Amino acid sequence: MENKIRVGIVGYGNLGKGVELALKQNNDFVLKGIFTRRDVSLIKSNSNVIHISKVLDYKDEIDVMILCGGSANDLPEQCPVLSSCFNTIDAYDNHSKIPDYFNMIDNVARESNKVSLISVGWDPGLFSINRLLAQAILPKGQDYTFWGEGVSQGHSEAVGRIKGVKHAVQYTIPTKDAIEKARSGENPQLEAREKHKRICYVVPFNFDDTDRIEREIKTMPDYFLDYDTTVHFITKEEFIKNHSKMPHGGFVISTDINENSHRQRMEFNLSLDNNPEFTAAVLVAFARGVYKMALEGKKGAFSIFDIPLSYISPKSNEELRKELL
Amino acid sequence: MENKIRVGIVGYGNLGKGVELALKQNNDFVLKGIFTRRDVSLIKSNSNVIHISKVLDYKDEIDVMILCGGSANDLPEQCPVLSSCFNTIDAYDNHSKIPDYFNMIDNVARESNKVSLISVGWDPGLFSINRLLAQAILPKGQDYTFWGEGVSQGHSEAVGRIKGVKHAVQYTIPTKDAIEKARSGENPQLEAREKHKRICYVVPFNFDDTDRIEREIKTMPDYFLDYDTTVHFITKEEFIKNHSKMPHGGFVISTDINENSHRQRMEFNLSLDNNPEFTAAVLVAFARGVYKMALEGKKGAFSIFDIPLSYISPKSNEELRKELL
Repeated sequence: MENKIRVGIVGYGNLGKGVELALKQNNDFVLKGIFTRRDVSLIKSNSNVIHISKVLDYKDEIDVMILCGGSANDLPEQCPVLSSCFNTIDAYDNHSKIPDYFNMIDNVARESNKVSLISVGWDPGLFSINRLLAQAILPKGQDYTFWGEGVSQGHSEAVGRIKGVKHAVQYTIPTKDAIEKARSGENPQLEAREKHKRICYVVPFNFDDTDRIEREIKTMPDYFLDYDTTVHFITKEEFIKNHSKMPHGGFVISTDINENSHRQRMEFNLSLDNNPEFTAAVLVAFARGVYKMALEGKKGAFSIFDIPLSYISPKSNEELRKELL
Repeated sequence: MENKIRVGIVGYGNLGKGVELALKQNNDFVLKGIFTRRDVSLIKSNSNVIHISKVLDYKDEIDVMILCGGSANDLPEQCPVLSSCFNTIDAYDNHSKIPDYFNMIDNVARESNKVSLISVGWDPGLFSINRLLAQAILPKGQDYTFWGEGVSQGHSEAVGRIKGVKHAVQYTIPTKDAIEKARSGENPQLEAREKHKRICYVVPFNFDDTDRIEREIKTMPDYFLDYDTTVHFITKEEFIKNHSKMPHGGFVISTDINENSHRQRMEFNLSLDNNPEFTAAVLVAFARGVYKMALEGKKGAFSIFDIPLSYISPKSNEELRKELL
């Protein structure tokens, strides 16, 4: 007899490892397998590691598949295949493509009578919830999202692609001044440059190249051109010692000054030593919700906005009302 | 043809006035009437004010009744009567009695095929949501709720009942030190005295009485005995000038240090110039949710944990995914 929620992990990078860690803290789950494209014999894990080619053999043994691939290539390819056989959850975070991704998955999951909860994490995810609450409760106010202080994977990779760069990390820093303006309630229009600054730590192959590399970073459109960017060149040793962590976080701030001149402010913020481990913890909690929605006979794609929050708790509704309301 | 959500307000105190104000900022609602026990001719309002005795005449004209009475006496008496004929929402905030209140209303609303959403506001309400998220996502962490800086109605009234007190207001102040400890991730056990201090401003009938009044305040069990309390005696003029506002707010902080020694912190906080106006704004947003649940054929009592957050937004699911996810 099996009362636990049986889950699988697809993809064993930072996010997949984070899910494995988070599952240990939640004893209503059992991890049936970690599915990977890599050579299984080379992977160190105490869990059951299985080659992705065998995933369909586990069709009846897994209640929710937690997809931990990247948004650029992995998820658009894997999720439609997997949602034809499994209930799924993912952290798809390519904001501008979410509507297309949702529709694609929705078609598959409706057909297969499965539940696919997409774009769960902290942004998209918890920050999205807070933007929704802010706009619904303070409709004349304005909401602001700030990211950081933390490592932006996308910006780090963009710097890493510049010729002559051996290693690179980019920190996004929200400016204190802009945060205070957002809290003021005066609904300022804040330019990109005002809200965030960017700091890069770069290990060059050759320290003679630093002027060119710095110029190429600072003039890179979309990523850096519209921001105040500082570039520091460091050794590989310093890079490994001081810049191997994945901290992140941010703020959703909404302020309104109402007709009676009363200022009302809502703020949600995160401060994370490890970004993928936190995203993973959110995925695991909401995997519980996927399981409950599937038990109810729901089917199709869903977002974090569609799920009653009681579904993500291991507690009963009675316990929640008594202990948390 | 009527496409707007038709609402009524029961009770025209600070909360009811706040709802009237909030409805003006949401153009998908129409206020059909404000129901009061008082003499209708004495009430100043541009809305349609109606004596409560006529409320059943509006049975088919109101989609959601927003109950704005007090939790001590009004709601336990009014809500069962009204939920036998109307969908309702309220801000019942007597935490320890919520389970009984829920069960009482649930019985009535199931019988009448109506939806009653109880205990909506910020605590219980938004703070409850954040406690649930914190416990589900960081199950080994610990969550802390701090209130203030703000006016506690219950404590102000308790001081006001002391003999010789003409007017009184009590401010609850969370201590900075305790907030920092909660953020540290070390999961400290914090005593009541460590978390909050209390400051009272009292207008006495006679300034010769201040020693006795101060002693009676500081030794009052439950309310003040377990806290560091400061009492200031002031004139009526100063009271009216500086202490007539109703600010409040607070923090829900959850921090965990995981197996990999990574500290992860979630924090939600509110800073409100006017407490009842904000609670009212939350009620109005969630009244939209009550309407949608009723349209779906749901019945019975519900809490904020039971409602998908998309229901409280005027935006469509497509818009929400595109703009807010």
